[in-house]
Amino acid sequence: MTDAAQSADEFDVVGIGNALVDVLTHEDDAFIEANGLVKGAMTLIDTDRAEALYAAMGRGIEVSGGSAANTIAGIASFGGKAAYIGRVFDDQLGAVFAHDLRSSGVVFRCAPAVDGPPTGRCLIVVTPDAQRTMNTYLGSSELLGPEHVDSELIAAAQVTFLEGYLFDRPEAKEAYWKASRVAHDAGRRVALTLSDTFCVERHREAWRDLVADQVDILFANEHEALALYEVDNFEEALAAARADVEVAALTRGPAGSVVARGEELVDVDAHPVEVVDTTGAGDLYAAGFLFGFTHDRSLADCGKLGSIAASAVLGHTGARPGASLAQLVHPLHL
Amino acid sequence: MTDAAQSADEFDVVGIGNALVDVLTHEDDAFIEANGLVKGAMTLIDTDRAEALYAAMGRGIEVSGGSAANTIAGIASFGGKAAYIGRVFDDQLGAVFAHDLRSSGVVFRCAPAVDGPPTGRCLIVVTPDAQRTMNTYLGSSELLGPEHVDSELIAAAQVTFLEGYLFDRPEAKEAYWKASRVAHDAGRRVALTLSDTFCVERHREAWRDLVADQVDILFANEHEALALYEVDNFEEALAAARADVEVAALTRGPAGSVVARGEELVDVDAHPVEVVDTTGAGDLYAAGFLFGFTHDRSLADCGKLGSIAASAVLGHTGARPGASLAQLVHPLHL
Repeated sequence: MTDAAQSADEFDVVGIGNALVDVLTHEDDAFIEANGLVKGAMTLIDTDRAEALYAAMGRGIEVSGGSAANTIAGIASFGGKAAYIGRVFDDQLGAVFAHDLRSSGVVFRCAPAVDGPPTGRCLIVVTPDAQRTMNTYLGSSELLGPEHVDSELIAAAQVTFLEGYLFDRPEAKEAYWKASRVAHDAGRRVALTLSDTFCVERHREAWRDLVADQVDILFANEHEALALYEVDNFEEALAAARADVEVAALTRGPAGSVVARGEELVDVDAHPVEVVDTTGAGDLYAAGFLFGFTHDRSLADCGKLGSIAASAVLGHTGARPGASLAQLVHPLHL
Repeated sequence: MTDAAQSADEFDVVGIGNALVDVLTHEDDAFIEANGLVKGAMTLIDTDRAEALYAAMGRGIEVSGGSAANTIAGIASFGGKAAYIGRVFDDQLGAVFAHDLRSSGVVFRCAPAVDGPPTGRCLIVVTPDAQRTMNTYLGSSELLGPEHVDSELIAAAQVTFLEGYLFDRPEAKEAYWKASRVAHDAGRRVALTLSDTFCVERHREAWRDLVADQVDILFANEHEALALYEVDNFEEALAAARADVEVAALTRGPAGSVVARGEELVDVDAHPVEVVDTTGAGDLYAAGFLFGFTHDRSLADCGKLGSIAASAVLGHTGARPGASLAQLVHPLHL
């Protein structure tokens, strides 16, 4: 599958992001404090810090992760046609990442790196309040640059989906601009998720340029949207986003989401679930929304599909759904 | 911790077994049939078969496994003092295995192999009936021989616990005889779990010799006990085991277990749980039982602790408990 030539219109969504394997562990708040972690955020860590933190952590489970990769796997789980661009190393965790994507039906043809650091991983501490605190050792995922942007895949996908986390390096910024231009030259759309408040604050101006100039569909949670536009309340952030992009989907945790396209504005409820672990909830919201969007569903249905997909990972540990999302939504006639 | 000199009496239990990382996936019965798997059993597979089966499997989660290692991690989770002997390779999955054991408080000081095959893994298919079908690529775990039997650890542990799965190779048989003699020379006990009916049938005479000559505490499920003694019914198997060993603990799935010591005989109920995945249930039964045994609990309490520990993994995917077993049994005043 990975080497098959792709014809035009073959994909619903192609995602670009940090290719990571998650190492999930359950710890209490004392662990967060004792190890100086930034609760609820994504913090980049180097090799030494990764080794020290892993040694301090309890028993883990290893599952494929990466924000955009989770979204893409979710779209495939809905029955969508999806592809992914990201860098792993030629090692055991890289093989796990590639297997898990491909076995979900995702086209992943980016060759593993044979020089440089090992496959990246995200050490995720889940606390009793179901909050996830992420500590990312980027490893080979940070080797992605414009030369890895697969123009053929991007031109063949209705939507190119970009994750904010990747934006920390100049090469990745170049890759995003290149991907956006390729997509638009082919008459396609570009979607972006802001990913993390700290990430927005580190690169606010660069984000604003990209959003205003290239982004058609913007995903952000409330905090990220306020940070991007430097405003104090949700209404102002929503207004700014609506002025910037064709479609804005702003999530508010248990309060659901607000989605807007032009004059159209829809409030979407969160799907009820007993929350065990918030890891991946935003990624899966984007999966449901984009699956609906690329299948010509109403804006309200796109939001509902996002809420349902998010609920499918909120109820268990890990960022990818255990069951088929297509089967999950089938009885709902959505 | 791993290099600390150990004094006499330092450990409750030291386990010896195949050091494996489990790759768990959920599939239906059609997958079992299409791939020619032996449902409910443990089948040894070579590199080519492992690669083909992994490619056919859906998305997995990676968690440390290995039968005796699960038991030892369970004993540590009860607050017991435990150590483990088994071989991993110096690779990413080997590091995961070592981390997960050590972070549970287990002493694991067996150096990783630097020549030979990679760390072993067990491809586990969980079907909708919660049954697990295991396909083991032994990798570096099969490099264990008598030279790796750490006599100092064994002499310092009340019980040396052996898993049946390891018994397939002559070097491992030698290792088990050596470990048993070291334990008995130090006035310690030897416990064995038969692990698997097919494993018993492959090596019946060798098992009978070891059990009759060296084993003090025998764990087996009903089918394994019948296979070992070539008898038709449970009562005969129980009688034969009672004649052979000091303590026999024979498990019967949802029907609980029967434990016997000399004239004493106790029927133990299974602990109620909604079964999600049977992987590791027998391993954790042994953990609870041996924790009780090494803490001078009554035979009935040992059985109850076994049932509770088994229930702690039957209710989720994977072979090691998510929560502290010590905290789980605390309110039960066991």
